[in-house]
Amino acid sequence: MALKDAKTGTRNEAGIAAAIGVLKQRFGERFQTGQAFRAQHAHTTTYIPAQLPDGVLFAESADDVKAAVKVCADHKVPIVAFGTGSSLEGQVNAPNGGISIDFSRMNRVLEVNAEDLDCTVEPGVTREELNTYLRDTGLFFPIDPGANASIGGMTSTRASGTNAVRYGTMKDNVLAVTAVTANGEEIRTARRARKSSAGYDLTRLFVGAEGTLGILTSVTLRLQGIPQKIGGGVCAFPTVRAACDAVIMTIQLGIPVARIELLDALQIRACNAYSKLSYEEKPTLFVEFHGSDETVALQSEQFAEIASECGGGEFSWTVNAEDRSKLWKARHDAYWASRALAPEMAALSTDVCVPISRLADCIGETQADIEEHGLLAMIVGHAGDGNFHVLLLFDDKTEEGIAIAESFVSRLNARALAMDGTCTGEHGIGQGKMAFLEEELGGTVELMRQVKKALDPDDIFNPGKIFHRA
Amino acid sequence: MALKDAKTGTRNEAGIAAAIGVLKQRFGERFQTGQAFRAQHAHTTTYIPAQLPDGVLFAESADDVKAAVKVCADHKVPIVAFGTGSSLEGQVNAPNGGISIDFSRMNRVLEVNAEDLDCTVEPGVTREELNTYLRDTGLFFPIDPGANASIGGMTSTRASGTNAVRYGTMKDNVLAVTAVTANGEEIRTARRARKSSAGYDLTRLFVGAEGTLGILTSVTLRLQGIPQKIGGGVCAFPTVRAACDAVIMTIQLGIPVARIELLDALQIRACNAYSKLSYEEKPTLFVEFHGSDETVALQSEQFAEIASECGGGEFSWTVNAEDRSKLWKARHDAYWASRALAPEMAALSTDVCVPISRLADCIGETQADIEEHGLLAMIVGHAGDGNFHVLLLFDDKTEEGIAIAESFVSRLNARALAMDGTCTGEHGIGQGKMAFLEEELGGTVELMRQVKKALDPDDIFNPGKIFHRA
Repeated sequence: MALKDAKTGTRNEAGIAAAIGVLKQRFGERFQTGQAFRAQHAHTTTYIPAQLPDGVLFAESADDVKAAVKVCADHKVPIVAFGTGSSLEGQVNAPNGGISIDFSRMNRVLEVNAEDLDCTVEPGVTREELNTYLRDTGLFFPIDPGANASIGGMTSTRASGTNAVRYGTMKDNVLAVTAVTANGEEIRTARRARKSSAGYDLTRLFVGAEGTLGILTSVTLRLQGIPQKIGGGVCAFPTVRAACDAVIMTIQLGIPVARIELLDALQIRACNAYSKLSYEEKPTLFVEFHGSDETVALQSEQFAEIASECGGGEFSWTVNAEDRSKLWKARHDAYWASRALAPEMAALSTDVCVPISRLADCIGETQADIEEHGLLAMIVGHAGDGNFHVLLLFDDKTEEGIAIAESFVSRLNARALAMDGTCTGEHGIGQGKMAFLEEELGGTVELMRQVKKALDPDDIFNPGKIFHRA
Repeated sequence: MALKDAKTGTRNEAGIAAAIGVLKQRFGERFQTGQAFRAQHAHTTTYIPAQLPDGVLFAESADDVKAAVKVCADHKVPIVAFGTGSSLEGQVNAPNGGISIDFSRMNRVLEVNAEDLDCTVEPGVTREELNTYLRDTGLFFPIDPGANASIGGMTSTRASGTNAVRYGTMKDNVLAVTAVTANGEEIRTARRARKSSAGYDLTRLFVGAEGTLGILTSVTLRLQGIPQKIGGGVCAFPTVRAACDAVIMTIQLGIPVARIELLDALQIRACNAYSKLSYEEKPTLFVEFHGSDETVALQSEQFAEIASECGGGEFSWTVNAEDRSKLWKARHDAYWASRALAPEMAALSTDVCVPISRLADCIGETQADIEEHGLLAMIVGHAGDGNFHVLLLFDDKTEEGIAIAESFVSRLNARALAMDGTCTGEHGIGQGKMAFLEEELGGTVELMRQVKKALDPDDIFNPGKIFHRA
């Protein structure tokens, strides 16, 4: 798994030196090679070791990106796009060195078309910045991966998060991108029509490509009307299976739940300890509905009935924002609550996603695995999608500790694949899951390699990610 | 446009003869080379002239497809997949000859996972067959392009239709495909998880590829619960703009309308004449809601208010299936009603799609164009998506008649592109719109060529479609 794959590749020393020279001359202060800048652009929120780029360009326009790509293409030097650095699988690492392009200064909202429910933004805009910008329009961008990630990074990772069950993932919410390709030209994948059958779906090819096919320079997004009302609540269940049954029934009945998150009993215990709460220490669903007064009430009542039928406890829900935020506190604090259980340990987050009918099996077997191996690990799931994260606390300072983590992840991913699931619902492959991608899709990965080779023959775009070039 | 692009390419006579010999030996009666079979597999529902394949294989399994692809790859012979032949842009034509693979015998539903709301089918299953099969499960497959197309064809054309506004297009409803690629091997693009970030989105690359990247052997689809209630109704508006305003407001308010179809006044006149109806001859919206008793009533009332605010007439709606079908009769009969206006003339259907804020402009300018040029043409639109079809009746027996049609289509597509729209919302490029694709996406088409060349180096899969190889 991760550490094996995150190996350092071959560095093109002469090319890198030449490119750095040209970029320094062209960009002056905006191109930095100091250790601090380089280190900031290779940190990851995983346990994968940082691999620093040789220089960082603070791009301010698509022209900057075009110029940088041309220089790097001329000298066959790697280019890694950097949004906020919140990716989890080593996506911003530079195993072969090269240039990191920082998008924090390309954070303009270029266009909002309120009547069409769409907007176009530069890749460095974060989702929170975008939603702040949109506030007066009555619209919002729904995808919420937790972190305040950049739109470019979310696009490249095919991100989703808590409300994908209602609004879909980045795949469903990107209408078009512009990108600089290997020849240094900027292309646009689609017009602004809401649907199109005009040739290959290059938009979807760039969504989730993790920066390996080109560098995004803008993203056109679908927007949603801010719901008139948001209702939310919490319901405890005797078992994970009972909670999953409630989720399945909710989805099958077509109740348009906006979020339906599962926390296991241990996660609830951690949250109680961390945030001084007193939730029942049982598998618990955190549920949210978006709509009007009438529909939120209707759907909440429907859900309460379903929960009760599945053996759940009382479903306490509210449309009051403050009360809702109190009810949801455990969910929001889950990550830090877990880390607080063992602050000296490292944490890694897994990301399997299985058909929803297998979710209870997959979580149940994983809990048994955790217990059998004496691990400290909590589960938080985007249950409506069949996607769950295990936050595993482990000792990253010893080889043994790392080996224990790696073998847990291997068993978990194998379990998900055996259930016709995937090793990654939303974090991407990066450096961390290349071996699992091969297990998951076999010979299909060769097609990906062919696409990569066709669009990036010199492997300059984020090399050493998703798969190794043959 | 069409006729210019639908030119016959170079035939590989020796290769075709050799492949036919091998296929005859291997498949016996299941491989046919008679004129009648060949003609049946090149007919299109467009005015694009038929271009016959040299033989037709009635495939019965993925192994048949693999064997046929291997033979054709060995001899560099074109292969064209054929579902029901309802494509509109010459997609099933064989401009360079070669083999048509008929999927009518690969029409098994392989798997239904009711709890996961998904199923896997062979490509020859038609959407009506699938929905008949699913009836007892309480589930249905929502995409409805009008024709009883095959799932393989719908996937390859990125089809959608009347209820895409609610359920999305094929892009949103295909979870995975299996396909035989140029080396004769079968690959699977994804597992059955509802979302995934595992590498490039090859599923979406095959959706809409019009058979140019490989031959589909199965498709895994998302399903929906059959709505408890369907409500529908009709509302006339003084102008197209007023009707479009009502559509925009409906979408902006997030009312989950299941269908919202616009017929222009001339189309209504044609329907009145054909089906002996007495609709007001005004731009009219046909609307449908899917949900429970409560939500259908709520949404219908909300829509009635919006319509009235926009100057519309009374919105008569009903949940009674028979009454609803009477109300919707004009929409269902639109095509034949139009044809009946001039049975001796040919018909072609355009397919532009524009941002919804430009829909009224685009339709208005198109109506003025129709009037200015004295054309006979009606408009039916999937208004919620900004997609509309002009059914143009024209004389396909004279060069002048064809030139008139071609220049109308050119003007219409240019108009849509100027509004940041696309020349095709759901019919695809095929042979009919290759020049427009270049206008629409420019240098981006070169990326498509690179992908094509990487995955199909000898150009055996449906050559002469979407773009010409450089």
